Amino acid sequence: MIRINENYLKLQAGYLFPEVSRRVRAYQAKNPKAKIISLGIGDVTQPLAPAVISAMKKAVDEMAKAETFRGYGPEQGYDFLINAIIENDFNARDVDLEPGEVFISDGAKCDTGNIQEIFGLDNVVAVTDPVYPVYVDTNVMAGRTGPVSKTGQYEKIVYMPCTAENSFVPDLPTEPVDIIYLCFPNNPTGAVATKEILSKWVAFARDSKAVILFDAAYEAFIRDADIPHSIYEIDGAKEVAIEFRSFSKTAGFTGVRCAFTVVPKRLKAYTRDGTAVEVNPLWNRRHCTKFNGASYISQAGAAAIYTPQGNRQVRRIIDAYMNNAALIRESLAKMGYEVYGGVNAPYIWMRTPDGLTSWDFFDRLLTKANVVGTPGVGFGAAGEGYLRLTAFARPDDTKEALQRIADNF
Amino acid sequence: MIRINENYLKLQAGYLFPEVSRRVRAYQAKNPKAKIISLGIGDVTQPLAPAVISAMKKAVDEMAKAETFRGYGPEQGYDFLINAIIENDFNARDVDLEPGEVFISDGAKCDTGNIQEIFGLDNVVAVTDPVYPVYVDTNVMAGRTGPVSKTGQYEKIVYMPCTAENSFVPDLPTEPVDIIYLCFPNNPTGAVATKEILSKWVAFARDSKAVILFDAAYEAFIRDADIPHSIYEIDGAKEVAIEFRSFSKTAGFTGVRCAFTVVPKRLKAYTRDGTAVEVNPLWNRRHCTKFNGASYISQAGAAAIYTPQGNRQVRRIIDAYMNNAALIRESLAKMGYEVYGGVNAPYIWMRTPDGLTSWDFFDRLLTKANVVGTPGVGFGAAGEGYLRLTAFARPDDTKEALQRIADNF
Repeated sequence: MIRINENYLKLQAGYLFPEVSRRVRAYQAKNPKAKIISLGIGDVTQPLAPAVISAMKKAVDEMAKAETFRGYGPEQGYDFLINAIIENDFNARDVDLEPGEVFISDGAKCDTGNIQEIFGLDNVVAVTDPVYPVYVDTNVMAGRTGPVSKTGQYEKIVYMPCTAENSFVPDLPTEPVDIIYLCFPNNPTGAVATKEILSKWVAFARDSKAVILFDAAYEAFIRDADIPHSIYEIDGAKEVAIEFRSFSKTAGFTGVRCAFTVVPKRLKAYTRDGTAVEVNPLWNRRHCTKFNGASYISQAGAAAIYTPQGNRQVRRIIDAYMNNAALIRESLAKMGYEVYGGVNAPYIWMRTPDGLTSWDFFDRLLTKANVVGTPGVGFGAAGEGYLRLTAFARPDDTKEALQRIADNF
Repeated sequence: MIRINENYLKLQAGYLFPEVSRRVRAYQAKNPKAKIISLGIGDVTQPLAPAVISAMKKAVDEMAKAETFRGYGPEQGYDFLINAIIENDFNARDVDLEPGEVFISDGAKCDTGNIQEIFGLDNVVAVTDPVYPVYVDTNVMAGRTGPVSKTGQYEKIVYMPCTAENSFVPDLPTEPVDIIYLCFPNNPTGAVATKEILSKWVAFARDSKAVILFDAAYEAFIRDADIPHSIYEIDGAKEVAIEFRSFSKTAGFTGVRCAFTVVPKRLKAYTRDGTAVEVNPLWNRRHCTKFNGASYISQAGAAAIYTPQGNRQVRRIIDAYMNNAALIRESLAKMGYEVYGGVNAPYIWMRTPDGLTSWDFFDRLLTKANVVGTPGVGFGAAGEGYLRLTAFARPDDTKEALQRIADNF
């Protein structure tokens, strides 16, 4: 008799975004003339850079002729893209990587979700609170957690609160943990980690033989010169960290699908009897068995952002988003709100006024200003009393949303 | 301390294709003038159909303008593609499906590899022998097997031999099994399943509450009108079967990446206490958590093969491959070889002559005719004494390869 994976029954319903949509739809139905602006979306709105468009068209043309047609590529991705990544994203920041350490994929969500498969089920997972739900849900599915509590936290997972008090950078765990998910620049808080902070985490992971799963999907939004873009800028990180990158937010690839993951050859994990095993071949095996390479067209497009022209175009797009971020942050601060993030990240994390809950403030913003944010409590218990706003809306919409908040509150 | 998933240590090295390459390289190095032709490749060689090229170019153009730019699509895929699939691949064969039962993905390898995640680890897996290795390896990784034996078979997996005696269609298992992988038209044997055979399997799965994972990646190569293209052409199959389809071989999408999986809403699996649970929402949850949608450009290209023009163009490409298949089959038969498959499938499964092992015949073919096949034993113990040839080479190469075999054996 076929049995289900009962761990799936522990999962909470995907409550946050469906509930946001439900409330927005209900309000719109009652107020059909209201022009609702969403600063809640985590998706990009600007079109692709011209250099990316040309590269993808050229790639499509190649697929039309037998002489240049490309079938299966290497599961790990094409060398032309891997080499461009290593040179521009890593060598330029004094980080050496071998081609065999970079794995091209179709998305950082997939990679951050799949990576846990190569580790044992008895590892203890640590995540920040608030957190990107994929890290948690994929571990629930795999069976690394117990049931969920009333606050939405799963047994056996170690939650590391990120609050204004610790500047949204988690304190080191006081109990033993084996797998640590860190995301900087952070979704949802917009916090970044200095070299000093990352060094502390690398040292902790080395001491406790833990692995850091470092989600750097938003590194392109870093503006301060002294904030590391890669965890490998920290000495010794290659022995303890896997890094995830994405072209989704960097180059508007949310609909194109291309990302990559770095698994250093020096990284080791252990069998139950204590034998050290290289992690890179394990991920390679997983990648080649359960994945068949990213689209050639997507990889050709991604490579174009490493050309001088493509790079300039992509930077202009990111600048436009960061102008939105600055406007949101500064306008809200001027109005007297407590705001975080938005300096080196496309996310602004605002404290709700008057001690309102996340959802109460969400409702007030929706009904009084017709502006949509994302309730912070949806990302975890420590997100209660916060709202996430994003810099990905169109500039005009962003401006108008802020004007409405100024006028109506 | 971070521990690995020790199930990965049970995996055998990916021996088959690396060993084929090693022997080919070694021979070529000693015989630099030899013009080696590969009939071993499982990848397509014909360029994409013009309708697919136009559709993808249009899609790329849309990505260049803010008004038509597409970011994240639905994880399950765009309706325009799902509806085209349902209408053309299923309704046309009297199979009804709801849009929510079709999940677009980036590949059938990924889907056939990932599907086991939603089922419990205590299920017993049955596979054919020979078999596509992904079915087995992903279950080894998940922990559903014991260690491997000397013949390359894993403990706890039920292997169902497919030989000339049973026309390469497995007999029903005599022991209890829960998850049954079937692939028709078959890779590597080229065998197909009649309606009668599939009905027998569906009845068996219904009786024993097992699930059939039906890989139909090669259905486009079926020529006989009475061979089912979908397992859902069998009454009652929706209660027990998940079907996998791919555009890789159908439309040359091996480098473009698009496929789909059908999980009927009527399909149920069970908790340990015997409660029936719908499988469709489990796969939906997995798909939305660990995947972020296939490339919009790939989906736009896939939809084009359902237009009248695209359909005609794609059929011409498949016809060309099937001409190769017929040529291989008929030429070898004329030379006195025992050959199977190649009628409704792009694979020809030939018995080695003179009782040679798969590898001995591989070597003889390589050295005497400079032609490369794939040793059948690489797909499983029951593949010993066979060689797989594919119809995916260029027509001229296929002809020359056969001439050389005729001249040299």
